[in-house]
Amino acid sequence: MKGNYKELQEKFGRHLKSLREGQSLSLRDLSSKCELDSSKISKIENGKTNLQLSSIIELARGLELDPKKLLDFTI
Amino acid sequence: MKGNYKELQEKFGRHLKSLREGQSLSLRDLSSKCELDSSKISKIENGKTNLQLSSIIELARGLELDPKKLLDFTI
Repeated sequence: MKGNYKELQEKFGRHLKSLREGQSLSLRDLSSKCELDSSKISKIENGKTNLQLSSIIELARGLELDPKKLLDFTI
Repeated sequence: MKGNYKELQEKFGRHLKSLREGQSLSLRDLSSKCELDSSKISKIENGKTNLQLSSIIELARGLELDPKKLLDFTI
């Protein structure tokens, strides 16, 4: 896994999408509940972003989840 | 907490430092066990970096911890 962050980003993106859809939230719904716009969230979900800690925390806030949940996937 | 990421970075940094010191690892020890050099780890511990997902995963690898543990602090 060393240095292959593309795969990591894609796994995180799929995990985020499943968390969002599990709450029947659209990209716009989630965007309205945190400081990230829907296009940024979409890019994250498509594995296109090596997002920062602050974005992880914002997404957790929008999903009303403990931030740890966002890293609860097989790395 | 909205938008105040400085405080978030500092909290994460203190948490990381306690995890590292809890394993009696020096910055150099931890650096040798992951893909981050010790000056970068030091900057993260001092709250100077809004680190990326890949760095969180690298630090977890170096500490041999589940990545969730790195977000196990009061936000």
